[in-house]
Amino acid sequence: MTVKAVPTHPLGPLTAAEITASTDFVRKSWPAETLFQFKVVTLKEPSKAELVPYLTAERAGTSPLPVIARRVFLAYYIRNTDKFHEAIVNLSDGKLESNIRLGPDKHANGDGEEIIAIEKIVLEDPEVLAAIAKLKLPEGSVLVTDPWIYGSDGVNEGLFRDDRRVMQCFMYMRDPANSSAVDSCHYAFPLPVSPVIDCVTLKIVRIDIMPTGLDTKVKTIDELEPWQPAPPSEYVPEVVAQQKDGKASAYREDLKPLRVVQPEGASFKVEEFSEMGRRVTWQKWDMKVGFNQREGMVLYDVHYDGLPLFYRLSLSDMAIPYADPRHPFHKKQAFDLGDVGAGLMANNLQLGCDCLGSIYYMGGVLSNAEGKATPFPNVICMHEQDAGIAWKHTNYRSERAVVVRQREFVLQTILTVSNYEYILAWVFNLSGDIAYEVRATGIVSTQPIDRELEKTAHPFGTVVHPGVLAAHHQHFFSLRVDPMILGHGNTVVYQDSLAIPRDPVLNPHGVGYTVKSTPLSTSGFLDIETSKTGRVIHITNQDVRHPVNGMPASYKVHLPSMQPILADTESFHNRRAEFADHPVYVTRYAEDELYAGGTWTNQSRGGDGVRTWASRKDTLTEGDPVVWLQFGLNHVPRAEDFPVMPCEVLRVTLRPANVFVKNPSLDVPPSSQTVNCSVSLNGVVDKSEASGTNGSSCCA
Amino acid sequence: MTVKAVPTHPLGPLTAAEITASTDFVRKSWPAETLFQFKVVTLKEPSKAELVPYLTAERAGTSPLPVIARRVFLAYYIRNTDKFHEAIVNLSDGKLESNIRLGPDKHANGDGEEIIAIEKIVLEDPEVLAAIAKLKLPEGSVLVTDPWIYGSDGVNEGLFRDDRRVMQCFMYMRDPANSSAVDSCHYAFPLPVSPVIDCVTLKIVRIDIMPTGLDTKVKTIDELEPWQPAPPSEYVPEVVAQQKDGKASAYREDLKPLRVVQPEGASFKVEEFSEMGRRVTWQKWDMKVGFNQREGMVLYDVHYDGLPLFYRLSLSDMAIPYADPRHPFHKKQAFDLGDVGAGLMANNLQLGCDCLGSIYYMGGVLSNAEGKATPFPNVICMHEQDAGIAWKHTNYRSERAVVVRQREFVLQTILTVSNYEYILAWVFNLSGDIAYEVRATGIVSTQPIDRELEKTAHPFGTVVHPGVLAAHHQHFFSLRVDPMILGHGNTVVYQDSLAIPRDPVLNPHGVGYTVKSTPLSTSGFLDIETSKTGRVIHITNQDVRHPVNGMPASYKVHLPSMQPILADTESFHNRRAEFADHPVYVTRYAEDELYAGGTWTNQSRGGDGVRTWASRKDTLTEGDPVVWLQFGLNHVPRAEDFPVMPCEVLRVTLRPANVFVKNPSLDVPPSSQTVNCSVSLNGVVDKSEASGTNGSSCCA
Repeated sequence: MTVKAVPTHPLGPLTAAEITASTDFVRKSWPAETLFQFKVVTLKEPSKAELVPYLTAERAGTSPLPVIARRVFLAYYIRNTDKFHEAIVNLSDGKLESNIRLGPDKHANGDGEEIIAIEKIVLEDPEVLAAIAKLKLPEGSVLVTDPWIYGSDGVNEGLFRDDRRVMQCFMYMRDPANSSAVDSCHYAFPLPVSPVIDCVTLKIVRIDIMPTGLDTKVKTIDELEPWQPAPPSEYVPEVVAQQKDGKASAYREDLKPLRVVQPEGASFKVEEFSEMGRRVTWQKWDMKVGFNQREGMVLYDVHYDGLPLFYRLSLSDMAIPYADPRHPFHKKQAFDLGDVGAGLMANNLQLGCDCLGSIYYMGGVLSNAEGKATPFPNVICMHEQDAGIAWKHTNYRSERAVVVRQREFVLQTILTVSNYEYILAWVFNLSGDIAYEVRATGIVSTQPIDRELEKTAHPFGTVVHPGVLAAHHQHFFSLRVDPMILGHGNTVVYQDSLAIPRDPVLNPHGVGYTVKSTPLSTSGFLDIETSKTGRVIHITNQDVRHPVNGMPASYKVHLPSMQPILADTESFHNRRAEFADHPVYVTRYAEDELYAGGTWTNQSRGGDGVRTWASRKDTLTEGDPVVWLQFGLNHVPRAEDFPVMPCEVLRVTLRPANVFVKNPSLDVPPSSQTVNCSVSLNGVVDKSEASGTNGSSCCA
Repeated sequence: MTVKAVPTHPLGPLTAAEITASTDFVRKSWPAETLFQFKVVTLKEPSKAELVPYLTAERAGTSPLPVIARRVFLAYYIRNTDKFHEAIVNLSDGKLESNIRLGPDKHANGDGEEIIAIEKIVLEDPEVLAAIAKLKLPEGSVLVTDPWIYGSDGVNEGLFRDDRRVMQCFMYMRDPANSSAVDSCHYAFPLPVSPVIDCVTLKIVRIDIMPTGLDTKVKTIDELEPWQPAPPSEYVPEVVAQQKDGKASAYREDLKPLRVVQPEGASFKVEEFSEMGRRVTWQKWDMKVGFNQREGMVLYDVHYDGLPLFYRLSLSDMAIPYADPRHPFHKKQAFDLGDVGAGLMANNLQLGCDCLGSIYYMGGVLSNAEGKATPFPNVICMHEQDAGIAWKHTNYRSERAVVVRQREFVLQTILTVSNYEYILAWVFNLSGDIAYEVRATGIVSTQPIDRELEKTAHPFGTVVHPGVLAAHHQHFFSLRVDPMILGHGNTVVYQDSLAIPRDPVLNPHGVGYTVKSTPLSTSGFLDIETSKTGRVIHITNQDVRHPVNGMPASYKVHLPSMQPILADTESFHNRRAEFADHPVYVTRYAEDELYAGGTWTNQSRGGDGVRTWASRKDTLTEGDPVVWLQFGLNHVPRAEDFPVMPCEVLRVTLRPANVFVKNPSLDVPPSSQTVNCSVSLNGVVDKSEASGTNGSSCCA
């Protein structure tokens, strides 16, 4: 069966019909009784060789447009086996183009159905329950488990037959005094029992007992001691209310409403460029927005005022290695995009909750494990926000001030990764800047700590609640930037600011400094030691020179400073997180190199990912560079991060440098009271406005 | 004459009556015919020994409060002389307590009247006009000059009798095609003639000619060549309109209004704690706001939920050294607070222009050069703003989400420093964080560049417009943090995250890391190399331990990474910018040590300021530490930064760490559509809300 003539676009995310058709192709290639566990069903994007001419023709209004075959990438298991396959279906030709079984060291991401199924099995397993019984939990306690990707240490896997896919299950319970509350925060009650389960047989392989002290000492199951009562820590209003702690309300009552009102509507327009894809235009920006299982939100073909800037922008992966070296925590390193998928974990965003103002919601459709198309409503929200002053100047002689406010257009998606949340947003502004903002929130991953040690400094974490340790951990994000700054064939340049030596003629007073720009000629990495050279990375087009100053058109990168991965270079944490050791990697564009940590991160051992690709030392004088920007934070938890942590906010900014003749926000109408309708709380300014002096001159 | 019984407070900024009374005291100590040029008339704040008991008693509601003498610090010249004095007037006792003439190496800040007077003299000086005549400017051209603080190189000053106070005047003209436009952007027309003027005699001392090429070559006045026509670059709407460039409007017309509405009013309260001082309470925060000539906005006695946090918070100085080592640019380094004053340069903020929403405006009163009180209306604006999501978690099993939005309370002031603007704000949020935000905007300082060299890379700057070079420069801000985290006697600790060595028992897989905290025992500086140790500075109270984890109560500091001053250690740029070489200085509290660059920065040569004080190696085990936080940016101008640059935004954040039992924003009511009244642009979510699933559960 060929899916044909759908009003589609080479970059349009897969439609429900395409998902079903693709999984049907795979099914039909196997005996009828075969059962499948689909892990990935996603658009295989066309090659640059095909897509660039298409997009150029599309923009030029050429008709008909080139024909590009519609391909789908699938990954699946034969259910209840370790037989893991990658397949490519060509929907245009109606062909299964390839279907390959992968080796035993490749393991797929987790999926929602699998995780829920494993939880059920673990919570009913007699051996697990026998271990838990040693804790003598209060009568009626309700257990909860969070299955985690197992990680890798290259040693422990050997305990399992041919590198089995397993999950490590962390166990908790609801507040025993409030066991019926489905949303009781179980992370406040971590338990030291941690079953490991085989994802093929769905049998418990082993039950790990966690170290709960300051050292590596671990009790056997038989030595487990009764749980010591501890208080809850709740965050869900109806659960908090059930705690009846005497106060009339658990909430402050003096925060007055603040609303964002756009009486003439929003300034952006959204069109369907395909059934599931959306083209957005806002203030000279023009981009296509897609959504897929692995990366979630993806931006394509980003232009400003008709100028090509970025071919593709996406978050390519994350790695979150934990500090605790003790078994089983030593394997704890999440790759949330590779291990599960940013699309799969995307929240259904709600009006009045996740965004403020006038919001457009975009949905997606992904495959479930059965290969059926499943709607993912409201996974991306779009809105405008005020962002303070964009620029201002006052001529002090005339007192004439001109103020222009900054406006931002935000594309936001939010992931729930088990205990944790990531709020991810692309932010565009009126001055030609693009920012990628990450807000890390949710609940820190917790583990039990012996009550008598609570007040002793812990080497690997912070006690955030009685009996609860939150281990230190690093967060690494890798942003994949595939640029086309005023055209393809860009050059990455690093710019260092360097003192010039004293010189009796040129620098007799020792104050001079200069800026040295160095193009990167082969693929590799760059480090940024701001305190040394103030290094700034520029993505440039050496062929397009600024009409006034002759400088190459460029977008420069502002990265928050990052401490590289602390796990040593021989460790599997480091080997697997192929992007966490340097803030910048540059590779030469190659098809299918989309994910900084490699295609299959689950139980990976390194050797696939951006470090490997960059080490090819490809010449960058031909082809296109792909720039991988790493940033992150070292999270040393605070008591204030529990039960739900206030956002840690990180922003990467891409700013034009010598792309535009002058300030591109110079044509934004100056700030005006007629438009802004602000309110003076103490009347002072209304007077000055009435007098027609500064007030009216500023708000012309 | 004693000013008595005014309803005042020891921290209340000087009132108009107090200013007049103080300058009268000084006047009366001199012969009647003496003329004065007052440079500073400001509150001399009480010593900590006096003020701490007062504030404690005030907070306890004790009556009567201790009596503290009201003192005023004045600095003045005998007009038309170099006789520079510092005086202290005790208004309570009616005494001139001290009156000292300073040495010839101390020079006062510039003042508004002086600068305007100098402009007039320069623009009428026959010698200057003769030099300008060599440029053969178009008929009717209107000259403009920006007098600059002279700076220092320790050599050039010797040319002047006993270290004279001089100013270097940069010259420009209005667009010659539009000479009557008062607000034509003259920075687009820099001229190579730069007179130096004596601030005492008000006579031209010398006329410098600027290098306009790539090297140090400078023409003599006689060699000056005719100005080559160049286009204007305007930003003021009515001037832009005069350019009649054919377009119907110079402004984009598709940016829709966006308003912030608080139908129940703002959540903050403002009271007068003195005639000019304001106490602000907002969401458990409680602080006093003052305003003075040097620092502008100052915060005192900052508490959260009754807990003492900060005794005094202020921007202490800035330094902006330029990269160009060629005469006369080699002396170009602005200390905007010390050289002029953040209060003196504060904008009169306008409703609907500088802030959005419901705004409270606070005014100030400062002395003019005659010693008369002058109102400075609307120098500080206060408002609330939405700041995205504060925290969120979804229980993936029940799909129950709780979202809390972040709200910020902003205290903003804006300085115009000749060509440049700084938007400075203290920002408080619902999670116990305090941020200091700097937005650098305005017009880059420009100098002429030979037209034929425009497209050649310049070693010290960027050509931003035909004939216009903007030199590279560094910005350094020094924030003075005088803490009282849960009481006085705090300890500064730096926390490094360090890999632990491989160890067969503890760290067999090489993944472990730990956090090492080191208290600072003597005054000094700290560097932060994030890429090495991820260093974080904590201001702690070792005597107040967290009830759960026993950690000391702390506020940790998030500083944007900074490249220290590039001018070498022997240079006067470096010697004078006593704070620009390290991101953190810690001194032991001493009275009158308020300004990081020393009291008198104009033509200073170092030896006064935080580097000098820190080098005392005072023990920090007694007294209070004062923490000086430096941050900044290296501005390599872009064409996009002209004519007015889009803001470069920097934020320093102070975050509680183990001060609160749990997330202090846990009691903020969850985000709700009833309150937020957001609008769905495509109707998708209204449906899901109506169905009472996620929508209503999230927006409970």
